[in-house]
Amino acid sequence: MQIAIVLYDRFTALDAVGPFETLGRMPGAAPVFVAEEAGPVLNDSGALTLVAERSLLEVPRPDVILVPGGPGQIDQMDNQVLLDWLRTADSTSTWTTSVCTGSLLLASAGLLAGRRATSHWLALEALPLFGARPTSERVVTDGKYVTAAGVSAGIDMGLSLIGRIAGDDVAQSVQLITEYDPQPPYGAGSPDKAPADLVAYWQSRNRYVPR
Amino acid sequence: MQIAIVLYDRFTALDAVGPFETLGRMPGAAPVFVAEEAGPVLNDSGALTLVAERSLLEVPRPDVILVPGGPGQIDQMDNQVLLDWLRTADSTSTWTTSVCTGSLLLASAGLLAGRRATSHWLALEALPLFGARPTSERVVTDGKYVTAAGVSAGIDMGLSLIGRIAGDDVAQSVQLITEYDPQPPYGAGSPDKAPADLVAYWQSRNRYVPR
Repeated sequence: MQIAIVLYDRFTALDAVGPFETLGRMPGAAPVFVAEEAGPVLNDSGALTLVAERSLLEVPRPDVILVPGGPGQIDQMDNQVLLDWLRTADSTSTWTTSVCTGSLLLASAGLLAGRRATSHWLALEALPLFGARPTSERVVTDGKYVTAAGVSAGIDMGLSLIGRIAGDDVAQSVQLITEYDPQPPYGAGSPDKAPADLVAYWQSRNRYVPR
Repeated sequence: MQIAIVLYDRFTALDAVGPFETLGRMPGAAPVFVAEEAGPVLNDSGALTLVAERSLLEVPRPDVILVPGGPGQIDQMDNQVLLDWLRTADSTSTWTTSVCTGSLLLASAGLLAGRRATSHWLALEALPLFGARPTSERVVTDGKYVTAAGVSAGIDMGLSLIGRIAGDDVAQSVQLITEYDPQPPYGAGSPDKAPADLVAYWQSRNRYVPR
């Protein structure tokens, strides 16, 4: 099962690596990192380079499409090469998925019109511009479209998707070997739980939504 | 604050990227990926390449040392270049940290003797061979040494460490922007919670401990 993980300049690393580390461990999974051109791709902070092994055109029919988010997604929202690839690949994919603002790229390609979807909490407001129906659930499944909330939510999505594809036993096995027994030292992981001043701070410098 | 994240052949990607994505967002953080030689480094599955921007020798005095785990750690346990670098860098570091079996590399360098520490649940048994005292807590702090449990535990460690270095408010801010509000679809993330057959399966093919 080929899983194409799409990289682009200023993607967020954990968006891609979280679901890679879970979904990619499913027996039979063949994850491949792709970008418009094969080669090194810099993350959003500029401190980490991941390598895209293949160009988009070299991977035309993945079974699973996985689009991470990151502030760089804004510049990709009118990248017709990427949007055309997404539409074509989606026409034969089994699952089309995103983490964080990756859903705005699926939406820009027209793939989420009329569908329930999620995104980073700072980007939910942009989904209706593309006809999608935003929800604040952590992992949202609507048909073959699976979207996850911000950054770390891709880990939960990866395990959910393994459960759907390969069964609960396999998903639990991957959870065990990745020791995913989260114990956050704080309870500030969503805007309804975090201190209001922190929510307001991030809203004031929202880098995810085009202005 | 320079944070040296150590890469080596067949490291586990999420071990490195989880704490990078949290700790690396702390104001003033300057994460740098390092390896024995600068350049591309393959992960444990061979499907993902991260780039080490600097060689170990180019980064002799990081403020924070972060050593991920992965099955490749076995071959590093007698790599004197790495062990010498760890000992030297540790002599001036503010924090010396690991995720998963990265703790076996700190232990091999002699840095955990007499200290409480953790590792991937499959590797805890190896810690006493180096004089460390294994615990099954998710994040263990003993002086300036912070070790995290398997793979995904590096995210929790990253947030804990931000709290200690920069305060609770900053840590919560990073938790919020990475939307770390985990909702695993299963409860199988540790050996005491997972089905016994899955625990036995992974024990039977333990790739983390030298035999």
